[in-house]
Amino acid sequence: MPGDSIMPKLAVVVAFGLLMAFISPASSAQSSGSDVKSAIEKVLRQQAEAWNRHDLEGFMSGYWNSADLTFFSTGTTTSGWQQTLDRYRKSYQSEGHEMGKLEFADLRVEELGPDAAFVRGLYHMTMSGGKTSHGFFTLIFRKFPEGWKIVHDHTSSAP
Amino acid sequence: MPGDSIMPKLAVVVAFGLLMAFISPASSAQSSGSDVKSAIEKVLRQQAEAWNRHDLEGFMSGYWNSADLTFFSTGTTTSGWQQTLDRYRKSYQSEGHEMGKLEFADLRVEELGPDAAFVRGLYHMTMSGGKTSHGFFTLIFRKFPEGWKIVHDHTSSAP
Repeated sequence: MPGDSIMPKLAVVVAFGLLMAFISPASSAQSSGSDVKSAIEKVLRQQAEAWNRHDLEGFMSGYWNSADLTFFSTGTTTSGWQQTLDRYRKSYQSEGHEMGKLEFADLRVEELGPDAAFVRGLYHMTMSGGKTSHGFFTLIFRKFPEGWKIVHDHTSSAP
Repeated sequence: MPGDSIMPKLAVVVAFGLLMAFISPASSAQSSGSDVKSAIEKVLRQQAEAWNRHDLEGFMSGYWNSADLTFFSTGTTTSGWQQTLDRYRKSYQSEGHEMGKLEFADLRVEELGPDAAFVRGLYHMTMSGGKTSHGFFTLIFRKFPEGWKIVHDHTSSAP
């Protein structure tokens, strides 16, 4: 295949570049965007893991524990961390409901300032009987001393 | 009532404080929060005015004119300024549709950085026959040389 003869040299250059990316302080400073992305993706991964072991409080630890947290969903609004937890309990843990398996996809994290970012994404839910649902969300994250937390969640389910 | 005797002095102090708030350059710098709020509220007011004179292009001037604009609505997503305009045309200007009267309420503008903010709000639509609908939106605004523009809109209608 064309270009085969330069592959070994290219591999050395790439390896050197990767090495420099890890040891250079300048590269490390430039990586703050991807640090924010990783930190926020980690919060979301931990939320999905908590949900899938039916740990609603663990899932809620990704949200700002404040009366000022807001949650918009399909034409309704909820204010407050406790009220949001109560809403999730009612919708997913009460009689006749189940939590199912939650997966996030197509995550797009965009930084908006030194301590703010927003995330666009897709969720998929699969229930024990095989029934599935999905929808889209917009999350506003702010950075607190204890880490990145969702301060506003707008989720809409596909009809 | 206790404390009455100090009221006149307090009034002078308060009046002096208010005066300083208007003339001090430091206070003027601190007022950037309300400047951002006013600028963004003006964009939304102009959008509603454009909508209500059936000027969809005028309404769309509040959105970032980019292929990267995103619009989430009730389980669907649209990417791009032109695609968003086309979607509005189809939903509100095509055969059998009308634009109605649009009003925004309960606007909450929150700054997220020097050139970013988000808005939570409620919309009301009233059609010529008196039929109404409403829903909630989350808007991400970014500041461009030409002003504040919506880069992402997540709107969900109440069922």
